[in-house]
Amino acid sequence: MIQITDHGAVRELRLNRPPANALSPDLMAALKQAIEAAPGENALALVLSGSPGMFSAGLDVPLLLTLDRAAIANAWQALYTLLRTIANSPIPMAAAITGHAPAGGTVLALFCDWRGAATGNWKMGLNEVQVGIPLPPLILGALRRLVGLRQAERLGVGGLMLSPEQALHVGLVDEVVSPDQLTSRALEWCTGLLKLPRQAMSATRRQARADLIELFEHDLDRELSAVTASWWSEETQSTLRSLAERLASKAPR
Amino acid sequence: MIQITDHGAVRELRLNRPPANALSPDLMAALKQAIEAAPGENALALVLSGSPGMFSAGLDVPLLLTLDRAAIANAWQALYTLLRTIANSPIPMAAAITGHAPAGGTVLALFCDWRGAATGNWKMGLNEVQVGIPLPPLILGALRRLVGLRQAERLGVGGLMLSPEQALHVGLVDEVVSPDQLTSRALEWCTGLLKLPRQAMSATRRQARADLIELFEHDLDRELSAVTASWWSEETQSTLRSLAERLASKAPR
Amino acid sequence: MIQITDHGAVRELRLNRPPANALSPDLMAALKQAIEAAPGENALALVLSGSPGMFSAGLDVPLLLTLDRAAIANAWQALYTLLRTIANSPIPMAAAITGHAPAGGTVLALFCDWRGAATGNWKMGLNEVQVGIPLPPLILGALRRLVGLRQAERLGVGGLMLSPEQALHVGLVDEVVSPDQLTSRALEWCTGLLKLPRQAMSATRRQARADLIELFEHDLDRELSAVTASWWSEETQSTLRSLAERLASKAPR
Repeated sequence: MIQITDHGAVRELRLNRPPANALSPDLMAALKQAIEAAPGENALALVLSGSPGMFSAGLDVPLLLTLDRAAIANAWQALYTLLRTIANSPIPMAAAITGHAPAGGTVLALFCDWRGAATGNWKMGLNEVQVGIPLPPLILGALRRLVGLRQAERLGVGGLMLSPEQALHVGLVDEVVSPDQLTSRALEWCTGLLKLPRQAMSATRRQARADLIELFEHDLDRELSAVTASWWSEETQSTLRSLAERLASKAPR
Repeated sequence: MIQITDHGAVRELRLNRPPANALSPDLMAALKQAIEAAPGENALALVLSGSPGMFSAGLDVPLLLTLDRAAIANAWQALYTLLRTIANSPIPMAAAITGHAPAGGTVLALFCDWRGAATGNWKMGLNEVQVGIPLPPLILGALRRLVGLRQAERLGVGGLMLSPEQALHVGLVDEVVSPDQLTSRALEWCTGLLKLPRQAMSATRRQARADLIELFEHDLDRELSAVTASWWSEETQSTLRSLAERLASKAPR
Repeated sequence: MIQITDHGAVRELRLNRPPANALSPDLMAALKQAIEAAPGENALALVLSGSPGMFSAGLDVPLLLTLDRAAIANAWQALYTLLRTIANSPIPMAAAITGHAPAGGTVLALFCDWRGAATGNWKMGLNEVQVGIPLPPLILGALRRLVGLRQAERLGVGGLMLSPEQALHVGLVDEVVSPDQLTSRALEWCTGLLKLPRQAMSATRRQARADLIELFEHDLDRELSAVTASWWSEETQSTLRSLAERLASKAPR
C-alpha cells in the first residue's frame, strides 16, 4: 500500500491504495511503519506523495461505516498515532500533494515540514464539517500554525475546499508547481535542507516544530474519546451514510 | 435604534441611530438585547449591518463627554458586555460593514464570525490612539487573532485607518463586495454555514472561537478600571474635546 | 562606530564600522549605549540605519573566531543585551535596512518597531543555519511574531536569504522604498507616531510589544549557555572557519 523509492538519501513514500488512497487502518499503520523505519535504513529525508490527481481521499468512510465501536476507536487512534509519527519524524518530511486531498488527505500534509501542490483541477481542505465530523482540536491546532487563527476559523468552520492556488494564497501549501515537476521539487526541497550543516538544521527544526509536537501533549485520550463518541452521533452517521451512497453511485460498476 | 429584518432563518440587525450610528449606551444595550433574543426567536444566524456609507462611527464621543464618572464606567462596561455577547453568540454572526467604521465601528466587527466590507471611499480601523484612547487590551487581543501580532502592533500603535482594500489585504476583513451586493453576500455566507451538518459546524465553531472567548476570562474588572481611569486623563479629555469640536463644526446647522 | 544625527526629535543611529558593519562586541556595546542614552538627550524616536548597500553583516565571525570561551560567552551576552535594549526602548525605533543584512543584521531589525528596506540587489534573512549556528530560540521567537509560525519554520530551518520584495511578501519588513528615500521614510514613520497623543500611543505600544519583551523573561542564562556551547561544536567551528576563509579570499588585499 506504500510504494517506496529511494532517490539518493531522500526516500519517497507513495500512497498506493487504489482507487483513492483512502486511509484505512491498514494503510495508516503501514505509513506509520514506513516513516519510522526510514531513518534506520539510511534515509535522511522523506517525500510523501500520492497518485496523479489523487493524493488521498482521507479516511476510508465506506470501510469505516462497517466497523464496530472498538474498531472505530482503533481507527481514530491509528490516525492520531500516524500524525504523531509525522510530527515527530527525526528527518524532514515533504508532502507532494499530487491531487485531490479532502479531509484526512490534507491532514497528513499539515504535519509535514513542507507542502507542495500540483497545479490542476482538484481541491484540498479540511471539509470534515461538510461530512458531519467536528474538526478535531488536534487538527485545528495544526491548521492554525500554518494559516493563522482567522483563516483556520474560516476554513475549519465552513469546511472549505480550496484550489491549489487558493491553498497557496492562505498558506495551506508552500508552493504550487506543475504535476510533472512536483516530485522533483519536493526532492529538491529535501536535498536543500540536507546540504545545510546537519546539527544546526536539525536543532533549529526541532525548535521550530516544538509547538506542533506540543499539540500531542494535551489530554489526547480525552480528545479521542470525544471524537469517537461524536462519530456515533445521529448527525454524523446519517451524513457519512449519505456520503458513502454518493460515492457508491459514482463508482464504476 | 436597531432595525430587525428576518431573511428566512437569518436575522439582519441594522444599526439605525442617525446620523452616524454612534454607539451610545442605549444603542449598545439595545444591540446586546437583540443579539441575545435572536436564537429564541428562531434566528439561526445574524447579520450586523449599518447605513449606506456609514457602518458605525464608534463610541458617541460628544454624548460621552457629557457623562460623569459613574456613567462613563457604565458606558465602557456596556461596550465590553456587548462584545462578550457577540463573541459568545451561539449562532454565527456576520458583519456587513456598509461604510465608515472608525474605532468602535471596527471593534464590533472584530468579534463577529465573518467580515464583509462594501467597496467605497470610506475607512475603517482602530484609530483609538488618534483620538487619545489607548487601545484596550481586549480589543488588541481580538485584533491580533485576525491580523497577527505584527499587523496588530502596526495598526494599533499608529491608530491607522484603512480603505476596504487595505483592510482585506491585512485580513481585517474577509471579503470586499459592492455596496448593493454586501447584505446579500453576508446572508449567503450565513446560509452557507446553515446548510452544513449543524452539530459538526457548531462544535467546530466553538472550538475555533474559544480563544476569542478566553479573552474575556482575564481580569476584565481591572482592565475596565484602567480604561475608565485613562478616559479621565488630561490627554484623553483634551483630545476628545478637540474631536467633538471638529465634529460639531462639520455638523449641519 | 555609531554616527549620530539628530533630525529634530528623531535621532538616527547609523552603523559605521567599515567595511561591513559587522557586529563586534565593541559595536554592540556602543549601539546599546547609544539607544539607552537617546531618551535622556531629548530624542523621542530612533532610526537605526547602515551604509548604502550594507546594513550589517551580522556577528563579526572572523573576529569572533579569535576569541576564547569566556570572550565568546561575553559576545553572545552582548548581543542578547543589545536585543533586550532594543525591545525595551521607551521610544519607538525604526530600522532603515539600507542593504545586505544576513543573520545578526536582520536580527537587530526584528526587535525594532518598524522595518523599511531599500530596493536593491541584496539579501536579508536569518541564515544562521547556513553558517552552522542553530537559530537561537529568542531570535526564532521574535521572527515568529513578525511572520507567523509557518514562515518562521520555513525561513529559520532553511536559513533562507530573501530579496527586499520577498521580505515584504512574508512580513519580514513593513515597506520597501528606494535607497534615496529610505531614511526620510523612516524619519517620517517616526514623526507620524510622534504626532499622536503621546500617552495613548506609548501605552498601546507597550501593550502591543509586551509579547516581545516577554521573550526575555524565559531562562536566558540557560539559553545563552546552550548557544555558547553550540558555538564550540565541531560542526559550527568548521563551518564558521570555511566562511571566514571565503570572506578573506574575497577581501581586497
